[in-house]
Amino acid sequence: MFIILVYDVATERVQKVHKVCKKYLTWVQNSVFEGEITKAEFRLLKAEINGIIDDSMDSVVIYKFRSKSYYARENLGREAPSSEDFIF
Amino acid sequence: MFIILVYDVATERVQKVHKVCKKYLTWVQNSVFEGEITKAEFRLLKAEINGIIDDSMDSVVIYKFRSKSYYARENLGREAPSSEDFIF
Repeated sequence: MFIILVYDVATERVQKVHKVCKKYLTWVQNSVFEGEITKAEFRLLKAEINGIIDDSMDSVVIYKFRSKSYYARENLGREAPSSEDFIF
Repeated sequence: MFIILVYDVATERVQKVHKVCKKYLTWVQNSVFEGEITKAEFRLLKAEINGIIDDSMDSVVIYKFRSKSYYARENLGREAPSSEDFIF
């Protein structure tokens, strides 16, 4: 399946969540990731994220699709930077 | 069509972009909006956003779908707040 993941977490957990997402997905922009993922990987990703976030403060939204072909992506403004540009 | 819009803009333009997005879409989380939109409205939305953002600094990513039925949404952590909770 293909997923888009958007996180809104407290500053002190941004780096950890970013690192976990990067293991499974491709960085698109700021707090947005996307990528093809197996069901097993998806379970692992969610378990890792749930181990990091604080349920009372943080929020992660995941959109799931059967295939990437169901959507088209459009960018306004600057090109999304590559993951290597993400400096901590 | 149905769209998911994610913005990453400089702090001084966040409020303006949020307001424009709210005119056409539903707020999901932090800098994420989604909603059903006509082609004409989509053109207006993009024109309004392009009038606000600085192409060299800001980035807006839009995922377009024919229908909402192409995806399933899943939330981890706290429930996404309603748009009314967004305080400037």
